[in-house]
Amino acid sequence: MSDLLDGVLAKVRPTSLERKKIEEVAEAVLSKIEELAGANGVECRVMMVGAAARNTWLAGDHDLDIFIGVPVGSDLNVALNLAREVAPQHEERYAEHAYVHARVGGFELDMVPCYLVDDASQIMSAVDRTPFHNRYVSSRIGGMEDEVLLLKQFMKGVNVYGSELKVGGFSGYLAEILVIRYRSFLGVLEGACLWRPGEVIDLEGHSALAHRDPLVVTDPVDPRRNVAAALSLDNMFRFAAAARSFLNLPLQEYFFPLPAEPLTDEELIGWLKRRKSTIILAEFRAPDQVEDVIFPQLRKAEQAVLNLFERNGFSTLRSDVDLHGDVSDGAGLVRMVFELEVGRLPEVRKHVGPFIWDAKNVERFVSRHPEPISGPYVEDGRAVVEVARKYTTAIELLKSQMTGLSMGKHLSQEMHRGYKIYLGRELVQVRDEEFRRFLARYFSAREEICRSPQEKQSQ
Amino acid sequence: MSDLLDGVLAKVRPTSLERKKIEEVAEAVLSKIEELAGANGVECRVMMVGAAARNTWLAGDHDLDIFIGVPVGSDLNVALNLAREVAPQHEERYAEHAYVHARVGGFELDMVPCYLVDDASQIMSAVDRTPFHNRYVSSRIGGMEDEVLLLKQFMKGVNVYGSELKVGGFSGYLAEILVIRYRSFLGVLEGACLWRPGEVIDLEGHSALAHRDPLVVTDPVDPRRNVAAALSLDNMFRFAAAARSFLNLPLQEYFFPLPAEPLTDEELIGWLKRRKSTIILAEFRAPDQVEDVIFPQLRKAEQAVLNLFERNGFSTLRSDVDLHGDVSDGAGLVRMVFELEVGRLPEVRKHVGPFIWDAKNVERFVSRHPEPISGPYVEDGRAVVEVARKYTTAIELLKSQMTGLSMGKHLSQEMHRGYKIYLGRELVQVRDEEFRRFLARYFSAREEICRSPQEKQSQ
Repeated sequence: MSDLLDGVLAKVRPTSLERKKIEEVAEAVLSKIEELAGANGVECRVMMVGAAARNTWLAGDHDLDIFIGVPVGSDLNVALNLAREVAPQHEERYAEHAYVHARVGGFELDMVPCYLVDDASQIMSAVDRTPFHNRYVSSRIGGMEDEVLLLKQFMKGVNVYGSELKVGGFSGYLAEILVIRYRSFLGVLEGACLWRPGEVIDLEGHSALAHRDPLVVTDPVDPRRNVAAALSLDNMFRFAAAARSFLNLPLQEYFFPLPAEPLTDEELIGWLKRRKSTIILAEFRAPDQVEDVIFPQLRKAEQAVLNLFERNGFSTLRSDVDLHGDVSDGAGLVRMVFELEVGRLPEVRKHVGPFIWDAKNVERFVSRHPEPISGPYVEDGRAVVEVARKYTTAIELLKSQMTGLSMGKHLSQEMHRGYKIYLGRELVQVRDEEFRRFLARYFSAREEICRSPQEKQSQ
Repeated sequence: MSDLLDGVLAKVRPTSLERKKIEEVAEAVLSKIEELAGANGVECRVMMVGAAARNTWLAGDHDLDIFIGVPVGSDLNVALNLAREVAPQHEERYAEHAYVHARVGGFELDMVPCYLVDDASQIMSAVDRTPFHNRYVSSRIGGMEDEVLLLKQFMKGVNVYGSELKVGGFSGYLAEILVIRYRSFLGVLEGACLWRPGEVIDLEGHSALAHRDPLVVTDPVDPRRNVAAALSLDNMFRFAAAARSFLNLPLQEYFFPLPAEPLTDEELIGWLKRRKSTIILAEFRAPDQVEDVIFPQLRKAEQAVLNLFERNGFSTLRSDVDLHGDVSDGAGLVRMVFELEVGRLPEVRKHVGPFIWDAKNVERFVSRHPEPISGPYVEDGRAVVEVARKYTTAIELLKSQMTGLSMGKHLSQEMHRGYKIYLGRELVQVRDEEFRRFLARYFSAREEICRSPQEKQSQ
């Protein structure tokens, strides 16, 4: 095991050259801001934060976060102006507040204005909390940096790393907190094997507010906050399952899985034949928005289609959504795949009405269906009629209802400009590699849950 | 309304000739038994009971019930021997005890030995209760006999009359109790409009034991017993719905509905086309047993098939069972019709396993499915695999599992001697009239729930 982990570390630990480089760049930016602040008489504290500041960044990750703290009551724009001046070639971005992004010496530099508060419970916006996180982790993580690197890479490998809305996984800060809690990478994996939904991790014994999230990690610097709020139940247990499976049979491929190969036409047709389900693809232009805006709308759209099928008696086997192509180029595409048990239902549909003793509603129900195919009759105490189904195929149903679905502003606008629907073998017409990789992952659907004992023996 | 009811009564009230005839036959049998008892020194009380004794029998019903009561402790066989001697041409039948059945002067005569107990709470078997029922009703029904006739005929017309297991409806005694409670036929209908499940009717204010039946009618002579125990929820509310519908728009056809015409081949094919569902008929020889033995087994068999379909992902629209032909001739057939939404499901089937934190069972689950079509993956906290379905069509499934179904001894024996299964249009091959009438009722499924307002205006 330790050889294996050393092998992983050799790949993910930044080289001394990389370290030196980031320190130099950070130092240059820090002193430049401080200098400018001095020259302009601006009272501020400039801090390097994030993984780079804590030596917990993965080799190849070139993110540099520098926060410019100003006293509460002063103007954040003063700090923003310093950032603008430091990097004349920049891009302004917005989270809760504006910040400045620039590429400096090969690094992705974010310069973020924030308020200097005495206590994380007094923050004005989420960014004000970051310096507290930085201080908390920095003072405790010493000597365990490699454990964090292993954990982050493992989480990447099993697809649960990242707290953005697209992923719903573990943030870097959460990975650090877990290492502080369990003292090592393997300790975290062992701990995760015992997790149950509603698991609580509370380093400082705050016993804070109740959360209903699957994993509750009380933020040591702000007991009201759950560090794992973004983590979905399935990603929590995808991680736990992979942890147990890895402990049973440690393999490097957990950290560095082979990417899915795009499906060929023959493979795609092979999958359709093997499953004999009804597969529908809906596709339209993606709005020019960041993923954190698009993905919640995409999930909402997916759910709206699932509800539509459900309401009309079509039962879904599985579904998935994704974003392909370059969104900022206007060449992005939203893709939603739905897999149904059957694509065609009978003409007749059972329509269950009110209880017989509810006289008014029974009368209304029966008179609303003056010529049912069969009935009315009594079943389980209720009036029932059998009537003609409006849409007997899922594809007719979707085509006729697509534009009426509730799916969020940006997505809805794009969808109304036009969309395509593909059924079964028509999917072969969609040839781009990203989609074919997405389908490869969709069809195989293999996750690291439990390596088979046979596999164990053959190692 | 009163003209309409008079018209009905004219058809269902026995003529004075019929009354005279039954009285003569009953009198002859009674005195013959008493004479024989005297000659043999048997201590007994001979009683005419049932609808004939209370003047609540429908014209054309030729049932005559005579009970021979003996003191507790004596031998019921002594009474049975008297019955045997009275009608040398008889048939011995069995309920809880043996009794004698004979055809006498055009009547179906049952002579039933029973114990003479002081109180209905001390009975040895159900028949001992009958004389108490007779006394209770006889002393209260005077002047309301016509109301009982109307109610019984109405119940017959809407298919809810009879407490035998085939029907699960209202017994004659229950109809009488309802008339005593509500004072008239129309009073019963008005009362039924207000019924809710769990309705309690307790004439003597016994406030007896709790029953969980849909309608609880405390037996005035035995508070532990629910007179309506055999009544199903659906028959209770079929009656209530018909009652309300009739009060809205009184028509003679509620009492005398036209019998269903047997479906022609064209009509049958028309129904299949209109519904486009998957209809399956299973047929085999009926055991030589009375309906009260066959029907519970038949319903059990129906449920077993429904469960089989359900377990394998086939959802049922409706089903029905019946008994056709002459059972005692060995020419009876059991028929079960199942109507499914779809007859074919995809190859792939989702198999949901244990929760991820249940390590032992996850390992067992995954190793039991070493080569799933897709997966394993995590969904809603559980391990899931997608595997090949063993039976992709309902017909394959039924044919392969039919002989393993749990369906009661007699039915099971006959089914193992051979059965036939018909799918969709193959039903046309089954040509007998009884089956075609059964299908006509099955497909139309029309019950008197609520006449449409249009219909109301056109009357």
